[in-house]
Amino acid sequence: MSTVSHGNFGMWRHPEDRTAQYTSLSYWVDLARLLDDGGFDLLFIADAVGQLDVFGGSAEAALTHAVQTPVTDPLLAVSAMAAATRRLGFGITVSTTYESPYLLARKFSTLDHLTGGRIGWNIVTSLLDSAARNIIGRQRQIPHDERYAIAQEFLDVTYKLWEGSWEDGAMVRDRATGVFTDATKVHPIGHEGRYFSVPGAHLVEPSPQRTPVLFQAGSSSAGREFAARNAEVVFVSDPRPAVVRSRVEDVRRRAVEHGRSPDSVRFLSSVEIVVDSTPRAAQAKADELSRYTDLEGGLVLLSALSGVDWSTYGVDRPIEQFDTDASQSILATVDDSDGLRQRITLRDYVGRLGGFGGPLFVGDATTVADGLVDFAARTGVDGFNIAYHITPGSFVDVAEYLIPELRRRGLAGGDQADTLRQRLFPSGSALLPDEHPGAAPRKRISAIR
Amino acid sequence: MSTVSHGNFGMWRHPEDRTAQYTSLSYWVDLARLLDDGGFDLLFIADAVGQLDVFGGSAEAALTHAVQTPVTDPLLAVSAMAAATRRLGFGITVSTTYESPYLLARKFSTLDHLTGGRIGWNIVTSLLDSAARNIIGRQRQIPHDERYAIAQEFLDVTYKLWEGSWEDGAMVRDRATGVFTDATKVHPIGHEGRYFSVPGAHLVEPSPQRTPVLFQAGSSSAGREFAARNAEVVFVSDPRPAVVRSRVEDVRRRAVEHGRSPDSVRFLSSVEIVVDSTPRAAQAKADELSRYTDLEGGLVLLSALSGVDWSTYGVDRPIEQFDTDASQSILATVDDSDGLRQRITLRDYVGRLGGFGGPLFVGDATTVADGLVDFAARTGVDGFNIAYHITPGSFVDVAEYLIPELRRRGLAGGDQADTLRQRLFPSGSALLPDEHPGAAPRKRISAIR
Repeated sequence: MSTVSHGNFGMWRHPEDRTAQYTSLSYWVDLARLLDDGGFDLLFIADAVGQLDVFGGSAEAALTHAVQTPVTDPLLAVSAMAAATRRLGFGITVSTTYESPYLLARKFSTLDHLTGGRIGWNIVTSLLDSAARNIIGRQRQIPHDERYAIAQEFLDVTYKLWEGSWEDGAMVRDRATGVFTDATKVHPIGHEGRYFSVPGAHLVEPSPQRTPVLFQAGSSSAGREFAARNAEVVFVSDPRPAVVRSRVEDVRRRAVEHGRSPDSVRFLSSVEIVVDSTPRAAQAKADELSRYTDLEGGLVLLSALSGVDWSTYGVDRPIEQFDTDASQSILATVDDSDGLRQRITLRDYVGRLGGFGGPLFVGDATTVADGLVDFAARTGVDGFNIAYHITPGSFVDVAEYLIPELRRRGLAGGDQADTLRQRLFPSGSALLPDEHPGAAPRKRISAIR
Repeated sequence: MSTVSHGNFGMWRHPEDRTAQYTSLSYWVDLARLLDDGGFDLLFIADAVGQLDVFGGSAEAALTHAVQTPVTDPLLAVSAMAAATRRLGFGITVSTTYESPYLLARKFSTLDHLTGGRIGWNIVTSLLDSAARNIIGRQRQIPHDERYAIAQEFLDVTYKLWEGSWEDGAMVRDRATGVFTDATKVHPIGHEGRYFSVPGAHLVEPSPQRTPVLFQAGSSSAGREFAARNAEVVFVSDPRPAVVRSRVEDVRRRAVEHGRSPDSVRFLSSVEIVVDSTPRAAQAKADELSRYTDLEGGLVLLSALSGVDWSTYGVDRPIEQFDTDASQSILATVDDSDGLRQRITLRDYVGRLGGFGGPLFVGDATTVADGLVDFAARTGVDGFNIAYHITPGSFVDVAEYLIPELRRRGLAGGDQADTLRQRLFPSGSALLPDEHPGAAPRKRISAIR
C-alpha cells in the first residue's frame, strides 16, 4: 500500500525500514527494480480511500500510528516503475464504488500500453464509511451485496469497452492514404444498465492485454461469486490450511459453473517470511522484528475491517476467531464460558508477526521453501503474496535467499513472458481467454464481422 | 495531448513525426528528457474524454483522421517523465466535471510528492456532450455557467484539503516515541456545499507545493472570472495582439478585485514556431510541413468546439471570425453581403499552419525571438506555450536554435528553481501566495492554532 503501515504495524520505527519514504519516486523505483532483478513476478499495491476511524471513534490512533493513513494514489507511480523494469508486473487496487467505468477503462488501457502489457487490476468494492462520506456524500457505505452488484455491472461495461469496442484490425496508420483508424471497426458499446449508461466507444486503441489481469480478494459469498465469474487471480489470506483449501475449492467449483476451467483462476496466499542464511539467523531476525510490532496499530485496522471498536476490549481477554460472510475473518467478543473454537487473545491475533494474514515462515531457504511447498499442497494455492515487515529488507532477503532455492526446485521463473497474463498463465495468450465471461463482447463483434 | 493529433492535423503522416507512438512509455520519457535538457520550463498536456462527433454527426472523421481520438490518460505518464528529468514542470489537464474533489486532491498531492513539487493542474470544465453521455449519463453537457459554479466549489474543497487540513508541523516521524503524525494537527475540513459534501481530512500529508500550480484557459466571461479568482497561469490563444491584450488586461483587473496583485497571474500565449539556421531554411521547412496539413481534421475539431457541423459548408466560402462568450473564438455562416470584419474562408482558418491558435513565427532564431518579444510587448503575455507541428522535431528545433538565443537575451532560464511555482514566480515561495483566495483555509488553521 502506498502508505506507512499497511499490515506491518510499527515497523516504520525499525532503523532499516524505508516505508516512511513512500511519497518519494525513488522509493518506488528502487523497490520495483529490486523486485524485477530479484525474480519476483508482480508488485501488488493495496489501496483504501478513507481514514480508519472506528477504533476509539476517530482517526486519531490511525494518524498517530500511521496505519493506512496518510495514503497516496498507487496508480500514479506505475509508469515510473515500469520505465525502470523489464518484466515485473503491477497489480493495482482500484474500487468500483467511486469511479466511472468509462474513465477507469481508459486508465487501465493507458497503463497497459505504457507498461507493455504488465498491468493488473485488483478489484475492490470498498468498505469504509469514511470514504463514502467524503466521496459520494453518504453517511454509511453502500450495502455490501449492492456494492458487488454495482461492481459486476461496472465490469460488464469495462469488458465491452476493452474487448468489444475496437476490433483488432482497427489500427491502419497509413501515412499514404491518411487513414489512421478504420472507423468501421470501432463500435459504440450501447450499454444501458441499472447503474451505468455508456453508449459510446472506448477512448483508447487496443493495448497488449486489452483487459488488465483481474485480481480479487473478497471472501464473502457475494465476493466469491464475483471472483468465480471475473477474477483470474484470487488473494487468500488465512493461516489455516483447511480454511484456505475450502475457499479455493469453492471458487474453482463456482468458476466451472460460469463456463471456466478450474485452473483458469490462480490463487495467491498471503504469507510472511523471515529468511536468512541459517535457521538460527532467521529466528534472531524474527525476534528482533517482533520488538517493533505495534499492538494498537493492529487494533486500528481490525476495528476498521470488523466495524467493531476494539479500543476498550482488553487485549489479554480471550476472543473467538470465526469466519463470517464479510470480507475478512473477524472477531467478536464472547462470553468466556462459550465453547471457543480457538482460544486466543487480541494480543495473539494482531500483536505478533504473522498474526493477521496468512502463515508465517521463519528459517533458512530450505525450511521456508519446504513450508511454502507444503502449504501449497495442503491448500491448492498456486503462489504467494509476500507481506513485508520492512522495505526493502524483507524483499532483499527473499530475493537473496529464497528465490534461488525456488528456482533450483523449478518453482520460480516465468520471466520470459511478455505480458503479466502470460507470466501467470504461461501456456495462454496475452488476452483474456475465450472461455472467460468478459470475452463475450469480443465474440459478439467477431460475429458481426 | 496524449493522442495523435491535438491541433496538428495530418502531421502524423510526416515521415519524421513520432506522435503515433503516444501510447509508449519511451515516447513520453524521451520527450520529457529533451525538454528538460533543452531548457523548457514546462510540459503541458491537454485532455478531453469524449470523441469528437459533431462533424458529420458521428465520430467517423475524428477516428479516420485521428483527431483527439484515440486518447489516453495523461496523468499516468507523469511519474515516468519525472523520474527521467530534474527540473521540468508538468501541467496536466483534468476536468472538474467528472471527478470527486476528494480523490482528485489525492491525485495531485501524490504527483506533487512524486515530482518533488513540479506538478500543475490545468483546470477545465469539459465541453463535449459525448463525454457527458458516457461518464455522467446526461444526453447534453451540464450548462456552461453551471459547470463553472461546480468548478469553483470543487476548487474550494481542494483548497481546504491542500491548505487547511494538515498543518506544517503535523509530521513528527519519531521512531523513539512511535508517533508518526501529530493527530491534533490534522483537521477535518467540514465542507458542506451545494454540489459536494466532504466532511473529513485530506488523505495525504503536505507535499512540496501543497496546491499544484493552477492553470486555466477559458475565455468566456465565467471562465475569465474563474481565472481571475483561481488561476496562476492563464493560456491565451489568438493571433490578434489586440484581442490578447484586452483579455490579459481584463483578467488582471478582475484578479485585483479578488485581492490579488496583477502580476500574480502569468499569461502564456499559444504560438507555433518553425525555426532553423537561416530564414530561408525555416521557410522551406514551413512549406514542407504545410504539405501535410489536413483540412478535414481541422474541421472535425472546429465542429466539436463550436457545436456546429461544418462538414457541408464549402471550405472556400467566406466566413466571419468573431469573438463570443464561449471558450473559443468561433465561426458562423454569414450572408456574403454582410459587412465582414475579416473576410476569410474555412480553408484559411483551419487549413494552414498557425491558422487555429496563436501567432505563427517562421525564421531563424533572431527573427523568431524578435517576433516573440514584439508579441509579448504588444499583448502583455509573460511567456509562450509552443504548439508543435511534429514531435520531437518541433521541440528539437526550439531547443537547438531558439532557446540559446532567448538565453543570450536573458529571456529564458529559471532552471535553478526547486518547484514549478518558483520557476514561474522566481521571487515567490513553493506555496500558493497568502493573497490567493485558495490560501484562506491555511490562514484559518493558523488562527485556530
